[in-house]
Amino acid sequence: MNILVTVNSNYILPLKVMLKSLFMSNAGERFDIYLLYTDVKENEIQDLRQYIDACGHSFYGIKIQDEFSSAPVIFHYTKEMYYRLLAYEFLPGTLDGILYLDPDILVLNPIKALYDMDMEHYLFAAAYHNIPAVKEVNRLRLTPYDIEEYYNSGVLLLNLELQRRNMSEEAIFHFIEKNETKLIMPDQDILNALFAKEIKPIDEKLYNYDARYYYYYKVSSNGLCDMDYVIHNTVFLHFCGKRKPWLKQYNGKFDALYKHYQKTALG
Amino acid sequence: MNILVTVNSNYILPLKVMLKSLFMSNAGERFDIYLLYTDVKENEIQDLRQYIDACGHSFYGIKIQDEFSSAPVIFHYTKEMYYRLLAYEFLPGTLDGILYLDPDILVLNPIKALYDMDMEHYLFAAAYHNIPAVKEVNRLRLTPYDIEEYYNSGVLLLNLELQRRNMSEEAIFHFIEKNETKLIMPDQDILNALFAKEIKPIDEKLYNYDARYYYYYKVSSNGLCDMDYVIHNTVFLHFCGKRKPWLKQYNGKFDALYKHYQKTALG
Repeated sequence: MNILVTVNSNYILPLKVMLKSLFMSNAGERFDIYLLYTDVKENEIQDLRQYIDACGHSFYGIKIQDEFSSAPVIFHYTKEMYYRLLAYEFLPGTLDGILYLDPDILVLNPIKALYDMDMEHYLFAAAYHNIPAVKEVNRLRLTPYDIEEYYNSGVLLLNLELQRRNMSEEAIFHFIEKNETKLIMPDQDILNALFAKEIKPIDEKLYNYDARYYYYYKVSSNGLCDMDYVIHNTVFLHFCGKRKPWLKQYNGKFDALYKHYQKTALG
Repeated sequence: MNILVTVNSNYILPLKVMLKSLFMSNAGERFDIYLLYTDVKENEIQDLRQYIDACGHSFYGIKIQDEFSSAPVIFHYTKEMYYRLLAYEFLPGTLDGILYLDPDILVLNPIKALYDMDMEHYLFAAAYHNIPAVKEVNRLRLTPYDIEEYYNSGVLLLNLELQRRNMSEEAIFHFIEKNETKLIMPDQDILNALFAKEIKPIDEKLYNYDARYYYYYKVSSNGLCDMDYVIHNTVFLHFCGKRKPWLKQYNGKFDALYKHYQKTALG
């Protein structure tokens, strides 16, 4: 199975935790981990390669230089954000598809059903977060783009084969230049504004569970989506937002579980 | 390493979770699990034996019948409670010591340091819970017995060799008959009233962390005993009280972690 990650040096440790949880929850599967990067040091790359090797999987680092000199840089986000949208340009042409994962994720259950899903004519598969307040803010913000749902870009299944034929970086760069001041989460805004109709929706409770909203999920599902459900069914538990579980001040519903995986991954 | 458990049929599932966490957190150690029981069915015993065998450890079931016909039965507790105090009578004479563990525990870290601790002249090692309100209630309740601390009986290191020489079941039964109406947690009350001076104290934050009091531990330690500390240092996380993490309504700080272990243990 092919997994895409795109981090800079600041996210190496959470990346290892995410990968460890992926390997643990998918025992018996073999993973090829592709990293698209710019700002990661050579010794960190070596360390990451050894880590993934020691877990019995394979690592492929693809350094991106200069190619993005024409890309606009938005001050509060890094250029690595765009890599998931333009991965089709940099990944080996032999790959038909790949699963992109943010580093602030825990993988709790097997990914196979998602990975093997028929992508039909869609460029991406992703989940949108159905929390009413969040939805409405993003819809208003991205007017006049016609957005029904606001997809989260933290888990993205990429139809590389189709993307190579139908996508272009010029359209993306053009969009950014036109909307720079309005963009809050650049890659996600681009994904939604330009590609909303070409995203196959997947269930957020399974594939992009926002760890901040345990009680929302539970109540809105009449109790069905409780902790038992999450632990047995949710595949990707996503620690969205600024409060990250590897930071000292974190105090969320999945605090103990994250730190348990962190200990398993990092000692 | 020798581990003692004493459950009836109602606690088989949590017992498996506890044992699984013990095995996972002590990779490389070999365990002999002794169960003292009365009310467990033969097929449940076989299932438990297979479970422990499959984990690479050994099971010894010791059925107790009749021996306790003279023991007072306190209506809201079962006779299995006493087994940890009288285990020295029933366990093989070849065992010098054993570690008793409640089934409502998760083992998060290696037990070796505790297990190998010098017992000196003490009959037991145990932790007391230092939460001020709880302490005072128990001290008053068990007057005139001279109790400094109120030890929790959920984790007990037993000095079997010394117990065989110095303890008697008559003293225990006599105490129960005299105090029946006052006893709230019989085995624990007995442990404290009769043996307080013969218990070697061990750190509750390491060896009997009460899962209900995360914030108390954190604040009273000036932040030292936070989630990172617990995950990396606490050996026994004890789900004291009536709200058990395997029940549907449970909603505590360690909910996700417990259910993660539960899935690992039971599928």
